[in-house]
Amino acid sequence: MDKYFVSMQGEIPKYITITKHIKRLIDINKIEDGEKLPSIRSLSEFLNVNNVTIVNAYKRLQNEGYAVQKMGSGTYAKKKDITKNFKKEYSEALKKISGKMVKEYVDFTGETPSNDFFPVQSFKDVLNEVLDRDGAEALIYQEALGYEGLRKSISEVFWNKKIKSDDILIVSGAQQGIDIVSKALINTNDNVIVEKPTYSGALSVFKWRRANIYEVPIGKDGIDVDKFEKILKKNNIKCFYTMSYFQNPTGMSYSIEKKQQILNLAEIYDFYIIEDDYLAELIYDHSIKYKSFKSLDKNDRVIYIKSFSKIFLPGIRIGYLIPPMKFKESIENSKINTDISTSSLMQRALDLYIKKGLWKDYMNNLNHIYKNRYLLMEDCIKSHLENKVDFISPGGGLNFYLRIKDSIYVDSIELFRKTKDRKVLITPGTLFYKSPSEGKKYFRISFSQTDEEAMKKGLSIINELLE
Amino acid sequence: MDKYFVSMQGEIPKYITITKHIKRLIDINKIEDGEKLPSIRSLSEFLNVNNVTIVNAYKRLQNEGYAVQKMGSGTYAKKKDITKNFKKEYSEALKKISGKMVKEYVDFTGETPSNDFFPVQSFKDVLNEVLDRDGAEALIYQEALGYEGLRKSISEVFWNKKIKSDDILIVSGAQQGIDIVSKALINTNDNVIVEKPTYSGALSVFKWRRANIYEVPIGKDGIDVDKFEKILKKNNIKCFYTMSYFQNPTGMSYSIEKKQQILNLAEIYDFYIIEDDYLAELIYDHSIKYKSFKSLDKNDRVIYIKSFSKIFLPGIRIGYLIPPMKFKESIENSKINTDISTSSLMQRALDLYIKKGLWKDYMNNLNHIYKNRYLLMEDCIKSHLENKVDFISPGGGLNFYLRIKDSIYVDSIELFRKTKDRKVLITPGTLFYKSPSEGKKYFRISFSQTDEEAMKKGLSIINELLE
Repeated sequence: MDKYFVSMQGEIPKYITITKHIKRLIDINKIEDGEKLPSIRSLSEFLNVNNVTIVNAYKRLQNEGYAVQKMGSGTYAKKKDITKNFKKEYSEALKKISGKMVKEYVDFTGETPSNDFFPVQSFKDVLNEVLDRDGAEALIYQEALGYEGLRKSISEVFWNKKIKSDDILIVSGAQQGIDIVSKALINTNDNVIVEKPTYSGALSVFKWRRANIYEVPIGKDGIDVDKFEKILKKNNIKCFYTMSYFQNPTGMSYSIEKKQQILNLAEIYDFYIIEDDYLAELIYDHSIKYKSFKSLDKNDRVIYIKSFSKIFLPGIRIGYLIPPMKFKESIENSKINTDISTSSLMQRALDLYIKKGLWKDYMNNLNHIYKNRYLLMEDCIKSHLENKVDFISPGGGLNFYLRIKDSIYVDSIELFRKTKDRKVLITPGTLFYKSPSEGKKYFRISFSQTDEEAMKKGLSIINELLE
Repeated sequence: MDKYFVSMQGEIPKYITITKHIKRLIDINKIEDGEKLPSIRSLSEFLNVNNVTIVNAYKRLQNEGYAVQKMGSGTYAKKKDITKNFKKEYSEALKKISGKMVKEYVDFTGETPSNDFFPVQSFKDVLNEVLDRDGAEALIYQEALGYEGLRKSISEVFWNKKIKSDDILIVSGAQQGIDIVSKALINTNDNVIVEKPTYSGALSVFKWRRANIYEVPIGKDGIDVDKFEKILKKNNIKCFYTMSYFQNPTGMSYSIEKKQQILNLAEIYDFYIIEDDYLAELIYDHSIKYKSFKSLDKNDRVIYIKSFSKIFLPGIRIGYLIPPMKFKESIENSKINTDISTSSLMQRALDLYIKKGLWKDYMNNLNHIYKNRYLLMEDCIKSHLENKVDFISPGGGLNFYLRIKDSIYVDSIELFRKTKDRKVLITPGTLFYKSPSEGKKYFRISFSQTDEEAMKKGLSIINELLE
C-alpha cells in the first residue's frame, strides 16, 4: 500500500494528483499489468480523502486507458504492452545471433528474403545514377507526400493508373504506415478489430494508442464474419486491421467473397479497413488470384499500406500508403509530425529501380526461388513432423504456421527455449495474440533464411524435441 | 443543433455514443475548434436524455482532450491543430517554389544549409565504399538502437566517450526524435512546458498527444525562470521542451547559469528536459560557449535529441537521441513501434563520413561560410530596415527574428502575403505560438538560402512594404 502514498499539492484537484501518481507507478512497473488496485474505501482511508476523490481518479485512469473495471471485482491496472517480457527474451535471442554468427544457427524466424538474393550491385548502380543525375537535389527534404517520380511509378506499375500519384503517400516502411494511420484515426478507448492471431507490431501500435482491441479468429478464407458482425453490432468500431494475403502468422488469404462481405459491413457499420498488403508478390498456388481490398473498394473505406522493405531491401525503409479522401489530410499531417519526410535518395533510387524494370525481374526471380523452397518445406514438414503438428498450406508467402497436436504436452515458448539451445530458432504463437496466454500450441516457421540442408536439419531437431 | 443528433445504440451507454459522435464532428470539422458546445440542458432536451448523460459525455470529451470547460461560460471544442489553416497556406506557398523555380524567389524561409554546399561527391564516394565493404549487410534491417559503428563514432567524436554507444538511439531525424519521446512519455492531458515562441513541429506533436501546453517567454539568455517556476508550483509538469542554442525562431541561447537553474528545478519538481540541440555547430560569436543541458545533467533529467539533417544533408533523415536510463526501454520500444529502424545504408554512410574526418571538415567550412553571411545580414538589416524593426543578434545559427515596430500597422501574415507577391518569402511569427493570434508583430528571416545579392534585394523589398 505504501507505494500509493502521494502528498496533495495545494491548487491541483486531489483526484488528478492521485491519477498521475498511479499512472507513473504503472509506467515504471511499480504496479504491474493486471494488478488489482486498492479498493476505493481502503485507498480513501489510506490517503485520508473522500471516497468520491478515488472514484474520480479511477474513472480517469479508465478513460485514459490505464485501468479496467471488472464488474463486482474491482479496478485493475492496464499496461501498454503486456507481452513485453517474452518479447524481450525473443528479440534478444534474435539479436545475439544476428550478423556473423548466423551460419551456426538454423533460423526459422526470418520475415524478409535472404541476403543472398539481394540485388546489391544493381541497387548500387541505380544509387550512383541517381546521384549523378540529381546531385544535391537527391539529398534535400522531399515533399511530404514523397518523391513525385516514385509516386508516378507506383501509380503506373502497380495500379495501372487507377490510383493517382497524388493520392499516394510514401512512408518509411509498413510499420510507420500503421503508426501514422493510428495517430490520425485512433484515439484512447476507440475500438479496433484485428485478426486473431495477428502481426505483433500492429498490436503494439494499437495498444500504445490505448485502443480497445477486439480479436476475431481467422480461418482458411479469412476471418469469421459472423463473430465479426456480432462485435460490430455491439460496438462502435473505428477500424479493422487485416493482412489480406498470407496473413502473418497464419499464412491464410481472404476469398474475394469474404472481402466483398467485409467491405459491405464497413459501409453499414461505418468503419475503415486498414489493409496491410505485405507479401502478395509471393503467390505460388495459382488458384489464388490477386485482388486487394483496395481494388474492390467502391466506397473509399480502405487504407492501403504496402511495404517495399518486406520483400525487397529491408534496410531501405520504404513503403507507401493510399488513404481514403476523408483522411488524406490528417494522415499526411500525421506523417509530417512523425518524421517530416522519408529519405529522398532512397525514394529516387527505388523509383529508378522500378522504372528500369529491375523490380519486376527481381520479383520473378524471388518468386521462382521461394516457390521451390516452399514446396520443399511443405514436404519436409509432412515427412519430419508427421503426427506431431497440424497445418494448412498457405499457397504463398514465406511461412508455415504449425499447431502442435493436443497429445503433445509442450507449449511453444518452452519449445522455443529448447530449440534455441540446439541452435534452431522458431517463432512461438504467443507473440501474435492480445493475451500472451494464448497461442501456446502454435509456432511459425519461415523458410526465407534456410536452404535445403538447414531446413532438414532444423526440422529433425524440432521433431526430436517434440518426441 | 441538428448535427448533434445521434441515435442511441442498445447496449452501449448513451454518454459514450454521444461522446464518440461529438469527437467525430470535431475531427471532420463539423464542429470547429473553439466552437461552443450546446448547453447541457439544451442538448439533453434535444436528444431526450438525462442531464447526467450529457455531463458525463462532456467530462469524457475533456478527459480525452476534445473539449475545455471555461468556468461559468460552458464547454468548448478543442481541435488538434488550430494553426492549420495558415500553416497550409504557408506550406503550399513553399511547395510551389521548391525545386526548379526557386531562383526567381528570394527565400528567407530556409531552415537547412543551401544545396550549393552539399558534399555530394564525397557522400557518393562514401556510399559506394560502404556498399563495397558491407554488401547485402548494408541493406538489411538494422538493430533497433541503430548501427553500432555509428553509435560508437557519435560516442567518440561528439561525446568524448562520456556517453556510451549503448545509450545512444539512432532516429530518422529530430522530428522523429520528438515524436517517439512524446509517445513514450506524454499521455492525454499531461502537462508540457515549451518556450514562447517555439518550433511549430514540436508544438504539433504535443497537440496531437493532446497534452496541455504551457508557454514561457524566452529572452536573451533563455526562458523567464520566475514564470517557469510559477507554472511548476501549480501544475504537475511532465516535461519541458527546449532548444538550447539559437532557439527556433528567436535565435536566443541559454546562459550556463540558467541551464543549471532549470536542471535544479527539474530535480525539485520532478520533470524531464527534452533538449533539441539542432544548430550548435554554427557558433559565430565566440563568447558563446558550447555546453548542452545534457553535458551539465547530473541527475539523468535530460532527453537529448540531435539532428544531422538540419545541418548536414536533410534528405538522409538521421539524428540520434540520448534517453535517461529510466525511459531507455520505453523510448526504444516507441522507436520500434514507429518504424522498426532507420535506414541502415544511410547510417553506415554517415558513420564512414564521420570516421574519415569529412564531417569535421564540412562543418568548419560551413561555419566559415555562414559566419560571413551572418555578419552581412546583420549589417543589411541595420542599413535596410532601420527604424522599422527591432532585433537581437543571435551570435550563431541561420536566422534573425525581427519585431515590427509598434508604429507600423501591419501583421506578419499580411506581410508574408505581400512579400510573396513580390517573390520574397519570409516566415511569420504566428507559426511559433500555441495560439495563432500571437506573434503577429514578428517574422523570421533566414540567410541559409540567400547569397549577398538576393539578401539585399529581399530586404529592400521588405523595407518598401513596411513603408
